Amino acid sequence: MIHAVSFQHGRLGYLDQRFLPLKENYIDTKDYLTAVDAIKTLAVRGAPLIGIVAGYAVSLAASGYKGKKKNFKPFFTKAVAEIEASRPTAVNLFFATARMKKVFRKHFAAMDLPQLAEALRTEALVIHTEEVLRCEHLAAGGLKLFERTFKTILKTRKLRILTHCNTGTLATGGLGTALGVIRAAWQRGLIEKVIASETRPLLQGLRLTAWELEHDNIPFEVIADGASGLLMQRGEIDGVITGADRIATNGDSANKIGTFNHAMAAFAHRKPFFIAAPVSTIDRAIHSGTQIPIETRGGDELKVIFGRRVAPERIPVSNFAFDVTPAKFITGIITDTGTFKKPYKF
Amino acid sequence: MIHAVSFQHGRLGYLDQRFLPLKENYIDTKDYLTAVDAIKTLAVRGAPLIGIVAGYAVSLAASGYKGKKKNFKPFFTKAVAEIEASRPTAVNLFFATARMKKVFRKHFAAMDLPQLAEALRTEALVIHTEEVLRCEHLAAGGLKLFERTFKTILKTRKLRILTHCNTGTLATGGLGTALGVIRAAWQRGLIEKVIASETRPLLQGLRLTAWELEHDNIPFEVIADGASGLLMQRGEIDGVITGADRIATNGDSANKIGTFNHAMAAFAHRKPFFIAAPVSTIDRAIHSGTQIPIETRGGDELKVIFGRRVAPERIPVSNFAFDVTPAKFITGIITDTGTFKKPYKF
Repeated sequence: MIHAVSFQHGRLGYLDQRFLPLKENYIDTKDYLTAVDAIKTLAVRGAPLIGIVAGYAVSLAASGYKGKKKNFKPFFTKAVAEIEASRPTAVNLFFATARMKKVFRKHFAAMDLPQLAEALRTEALVIHTEEVLRCEHLAAGGLKLFERTFKTILKTRKLRILTHCNTGTLATGGLGTALGVIRAAWQRGLIEKVIASETRPLLQGLRLTAWELEHDNIPFEVIADGASGLLMQRGEIDGVITGADRIATNGDSANKIGTFNHAMAAFAHRKPFFIAAPVSTIDRAIHSGTQIPIETRGGDELKVIFGRRVAPERIPVSNFAFDVTPAKFITGIITDTGTFKKPYKF
Repeated sequence: MIHAVSFQHGRLGYLDQRFLPLKENYIDTKDYLTAVDAIKTLAVRGAPLIGIVAGYAVSLAASGYKGKKKNFKPFFTKAVAEIEASRPTAVNLFFATARMKKVFRKHFAAMDLPQLAEALRTEALVIHTEEVLRCEHLAAGGLKLFERTFKTILKTRKLRILTHCNTGTLATGGLGTALGVIRAAWQRGLIEKVIASETRPLLQGLRLTAWELEHDNIPFEVIADGASGLLMQRGEIDGVITGADRIATNGDSANKIGTFNHAMAAFAHRKPFFIAAPVSTIDRAIHSGTQIPIETRGGDELKVIFGRRVAPERIPVSNFAFDVTPAKFITGIITDTGTFKKPYKF
């Protein structure tokens, strides 16, 4: 079992993901500023995991406070602001800090500081536990859908499933979303092999998903992102499952760049393509993928690989972080509160 | 103008492509063993360019010989064998050495050694010149096809064309195949921007195509291979053109891994997808893409990038060098002797 994040005896433990899979660096700290730094430097990443670490960071700030109660409020406000500034685009981070602030507001007047710190620690643990349970519910639903969808193939052999980016423990703190479904299917004996696409530019598939699969002894192989079509053509991929960062109410799903190309390849080969994501990923204010803004990031993400420059700074690069797969290409959307099939109406 | 290969005053000049685009290392030699080494170490690559360099290597071997005529034949045979062993899977290399051996057989009895060396040098120059002319014919045909295909768009604006891998001067010694068509279209004022996909694992798009486009002052940007679908969805790619390594008589085309995914993305967005290749690429013994064998290469091509290890050796990788795009996905095939449209019957 991988411990991407843990909290024991008042200390936060996390795995510094930056040097994976070459180095496994576990950090253990009582200092909330170390946690802030971990988020800032991408030592921890993945939307749900950032939320969990942010919750623990608030808890550490409170329990580390040595001053008087009358000075606690400004200290707490400043600490939460520092935590929120560590990755201002991460929605889950703000979900977590909002919950922690709510606990603070509710109990600050009535409790003494040790009691308040205890209440905050409990809330952080609940945020983490909820995330773990969310993954388990999602995986259970996904497993059922896999059993139904691949019924015919499963009569004669096990499955070869493609996934993209990293959606596992390293991203969620729990079983994972897409990778959680794969884990459940593996435990049920349905999986022959996982195909992990490397996921350029940041190589989360090659670096993180491969590392998780290796730890779980799940057979796998890594491919270049552009190789998914060939493998489907050769019958070496039976279906695809990926995560999502945002889902419109018509089912259009934004996810890591490269996802849409896999979906089109699956569509052309009549292979099922699934999205697995917490139900909170469905954005009820967004009715179509065309309304989802796509973040562009610095070109050096393509030109500097693991610290090694492969192309001069002056080379122009277009680096969209996400793409949007239209609902037409999505066979099913698996969430922690249920699975959905086309046509999607959330 | 880029000189990937040149021959002047009895000396072979070539650009060592291994360190592009970070270093431009031009080599100049009279020694055929240096040329052998250049092929062996991938300092020169690209099927037509390897053929050209192999021809010059044979010529250099002959002109560098200082012994008696009676000993020339075993020397020549050994030298040609060394040249052929430099990249035993490169078909164009053997086309070139076969032509050089034919000249040798034809003239060896009647000519003295300086005359024979002169005849061999002439043949090597003819091989090179033919390649340059082939590219020009291909580019002229491709330009016409572009003008017809994109007629409606061209009434209001210039084109954004995606290409994959490197098919330019660095691969052919001439204008290039797919990149030759793009060059011709640019000179005719049809191109707004070229989108070059980086081409994992070896990054020929990011490293070589970008470098060539920069030298020609053609506006371009590099993208991750998985980003082609998003850019088509956003209307930022009007069409795709790539090379081919082998074409079946039904039009199915093998090319660098990643090509098929771009073709499926183009198909899903109703954008034209073109193949540009010398007519000799059509293999009349192969009637369908399913008969084309696909080379798999070492996994470290994905795990070691430009000398930097990004994943441990033990991580399993599936590294197919090529994929096969079925004819259904190909709008047109452009060759040096004519352009073809669906249904293909070669």
